[in-house]
Amino acid sequence: MSLVIVGSLAFDTIETPLDRREKIVGGSGTYCSLAASFFTHPRVVGVVGRDFPRKTLDFLRSRKIDLKGVSIKAGKTFHWEGRYGEDPNQRTTVRTDLNVFADFKPVLPPSYRSADIIYLANIDPDLHEPILNQARKPRLVAMDTIRYWIESKTDAVFRELKRVDIYFANDEEVKLLAGDTNLVRAGRKLLKCGPSLIVAKKGEHGALVFGRDFIFGVLARPSEDVVDPTGAGDSFAGGFLGYLDTVPKITPRELRRAVVYGSVIASFAIEDFGIDRFRTLTPREIKARFGEFKKLVSF
Amino acid sequence: MSLVIVGSLAFDTIETPLDRREKIVGGSGTYCSLAASFFTHPRVVGVVGRDFPRKTLDFLRSRKIDLKGVSIKAGKTFHWEGRYGEDPNQRTTVRTDLNVFADFKPVLPPSYRSADIIYLANIDPDLHEPILNQARKPRLVAMDTIRYWIESKTDAVFRELKRVDIYFANDEEVKLLAGDTNLVRAGRKLLKCGPSLIVAKKGEHGALVFGRDFIFGVLARPSEDVVDPTGAGDSFAGGFLGYLDTVPKITPRELRRAVVYGSVIASFAIEDFGIDRFRTLTPREIKARFGEFKKLVSF
Repeated sequence: MSLVIVGSLAFDTIETPLDRREKIVGGSGTYCSLAASFFTHPRVVGVVGRDFPRKTLDFLRSRKIDLKGVSIKAGKTFHWEGRYGEDPNQRTTVRTDLNVFADFKPVLPPSYRSADIIYLANIDPDLHEPILNQARKPRLVAMDTIRYWIESKTDAVFRELKRVDIYFANDEEVKLLAGDTNLVRAGRKLLKCGPSLIVAKKGEHGALVFGRDFIFGVLARPSEDVVDPTGAGDSFAGGFLGYLDTVPKITPRELRRAVVYGSVIASFAIEDFGIDRFRTLTPREIKARFGEFKKLVSF
Repeated sequence: MSLVIVGSLAFDTIETPLDRREKIVGGSGTYCSLAASFFTHPRVVGVVGRDFPRKTLDFLRSRKIDLKGVSIKAGKTFHWEGRYGEDPNQRTTVRTDLNVFADFKPVLPPSYRSADIIYLANIDPDLHEPILNQARKPRLVAMDTIRYWIESKTDAVFRELKRVDIYFANDEEVKLLAGDTNLVRAGRKLLKCGPSLIVAKKGEHGALVFGRDFIFGVLARPSEDVVDPTGAGDSFAGGFLGYLDTVPKITPRELRRAVVYGSVIASFAIEDFGIDRFRTLTPREIKARFGEFKKLVSF
């Protein structure tokens, strides 16, 4: 089993109603690989500048994350700045400095090319093809995308949908891409565009998952303290795919469990700023919270 | 077992993005009692004008709903007009003509006074005390309220919270009343104000239920066609309380099942305009959908 994650390693400057953090480590690849590392040994493809902290790379390696695919370039690391309102589902991008990420040309090291699962985190859809061309028959390809690409490269997003098995997006993005204001209709429309699974993430309202012949829903864990919602979606994908990487056969039952593991990991990620919660998280805590998720919806 | 519902019988004029209906029958008491009638024989306290259709009263009676508490007054029936956006959770009140409802002085007929469960639907909180003073030791008292009363009669709402066991409200109203932007904190705060159960309805996102020592969550049924969201909340309360009226002992397990039955009935109510779906709904459909709700969240 092997999971390759292509995404960003970044600095985030984050403002919440209660606090602010300047240039802490974030990025889709970082969150996703840390989340997945509680299940498998993910491999990351990304790029950082010389200013990216060596001790963060050491931390990732200590979690058995393979960083052979991460290149260090002259220049600065991708920097995103965002602000959250009282409703953590609402966020405003204040500033985006792509820096070395602007010329990101993902290269899969030879040891990554036989990956079973490839996850294309939120990157330019035009990068998908060159990445997938480097891979040998992955068992499963998943992608995420955001409003920016849906609006600026609609055709490319639809072209890439044909090549993936799982499409992750926020509910608003699913509706935007499908051109339908109803999430269920939108999810079903996108199922006809290629993927066999559409995972619509709804933040504090959980997630709805549309398969060819089933719908599955998960509630987010009711939380009194959302410290920092950044990376929740990427952590969800990481937990989801990390778990799937460990199962012998991907069945509807395993997909449901993967969704719950994704939600469990995301529920931890938001308990602290940036990636800090992953520094202390234990398998025992994950197991206990999986049980909590079951209890929450059992009747 | 007996359930008394105090609420409105009304005319609604409803505009959705796709359609419009003028002066069709609605009202919290109407929706709630019809929903409850699939489980028990609810008793209604309300007031209508002479213009209220006799055939609707006949329909309610045919569903074994006791209308002894409904008085017919000279004048016009309460009329509400509202408009829904593309997001069915967002509704705008265009017009409210209280008419005979303005002088509503609820009187419990003698046969209602020993009711086990009393539901105070969205009515002036100052009416609660005179109603409850007419009742003999109900086993359970529940209330709903809306933004209008929370803002105009905050103290009265808090005073009445002390007298009820279950508080139903939309998530936004729970947060508004508790003065907290986080729903979980808000729910827990209100638990300290009297009720032993806070039911926060989240429309298409389901509901979160806060008990003294548990949280339960239910997803709304993913629906492609929300024809008319009016009355979903009242139908939820009706299904919930109607089911509870049938159980020998109110346990956490029965409360969870009641929440699901409430959601099931609400999911039917929104499939047609006004109360029309209740004309054809069968126990077999309810049972099948209860199973669907289980399947939706099982993992």
